[in-house]
Amino acid sequence: MFSGKLLQLQQNLKNLPGIGEKTAQRLALFILSQNKEKSYQLADSIKIAVDSYTNCSTCNMLNETDPCPICKDPTRDESLLCIVESTRDVYHIESTQEYHGYYYVLGKLLSPVDGIGPKQLGLEKLKALVQDKCFKEIIFAISPSTEGESTIHFIAEYLQDISICLTRLSTGIPYGSDMEYTGTVTLMNALKRRFPI
Amino acid sequence: MFSGKLLQLQQNLKNLPGIGEKTAQRLALFILSQNKEKSYQLADSIKIAVDSYTNCSTCNMLNETDPCPICKDPTRDESLLCIVESTRDVYHIESTQEYHGYYYVLGKLLSPVDGIGPKQLGLEKLKALVQDKCFKEIIFAISPSTEGESTIHFIAEYLQDISICLTRLSTGIPYGSDMEYTGTVTLMNALKRRFPI
Repeated sequence: MFSGKLLQLQQNLKNLPGIGEKTAQRLALFILSQNKEKSYQLADSIKIAVDSYTNCSTCNMLNETDPCPICKDPTRDESLLCIVESTRDVYHIESTQEYHGYYYVLGKLLSPVDGIGPKQLGLEKLKALVQDKCFKEIIFAISPSTEGESTIHFIAEYLQDISICLTRLSTGIPYGSDMEYTGTVTLMNALKRRFPI
Repeated sequence: MFSGKLLQLQQNLKNLPGIGEKTAQRLALFILSQNKEKSYQLADSIKIAVDSYTNCSTCNMLNETDPCPICKDPTRDESLLCIVESTRDVYHIESTQEYHGYYYVLGKLLSPVDGIGPKQLGLEKLKALVQDKCFKEIIFAISPSTEGESTIHFIAEYLQDISICLTRLSTGIPYGSDMEYTGTVTLMNALKRRFPI
């Protein structure tokens, strides 16, 4: 009963992260049933944003300008570089207002299953940046998942001949969560890294 | 740090159902970082679908043709009309292959909070359809929510001078669910409508 054009829209929506078959169908039908003007606006804003954004040639962050506002901001802390997976993580960390150094966006994590090996990470650029600047510390702000862990360790090894302090975000029980629902590995880590009150 | 064009895209995505602030940001950044061609395809498929879909003048279902394939299918059961909230519900019911009658899509449910009163339901069209055809039964396939319940009862009252059997989908414990997590009202209904094995 689904016709080609609706199926095509559904398929394109399904390519977005976190959007499954059912949600894609729901969104597609909503797009068709809402005010036509609004759907046109959505389509146009996609093209406009895609056309005006580019990756910063220094840190890879998606931005309208190159270099991005962070890379060209001289007031930031020159001793700190934070390695993240995606531009989203930059926004996330910026929202804490706790970090004032520079960033480097990897764009991906090591994942042999998805064909992402060390080559795909493009670490030469990161090394050149680290050698060019005088950071005192590199902070890995990467998810503590299997892919995240192997990426952190691979990069740490890759940078081992550069004398620089490598750190990573603390792992533990998230603020506001319930002990009862904390996973075993998280609890193990939290115990291992317990700190004085 | 967010610039106007990304904000605009995020805002437009946030208008979609079930998409909150965070998901909209995630989707927007994904759209910018994926292959440009794919994002263009998404934008184009929105416009193409919006341009080619219309509401069936008989049953209101969103479709590429008017009348829709269901309304113009003479092999369907002429004695049954199923009233649903949205086109999505039509697809959902069709996927069960259990129902072979016709449909009527309301498009909305009574919701005084959202300014949707009896007038906005446009029931004259439904009444005209029911008077024109010779349905023997009208099935209300509408969510058993507050809005759903009041809509069902309002329409039932509105159609009371037409001699026709009005039914609604059974309510009870969903298949495969756990008794423990079944809500009190659901359990009450399931007890009330228990049936012999």
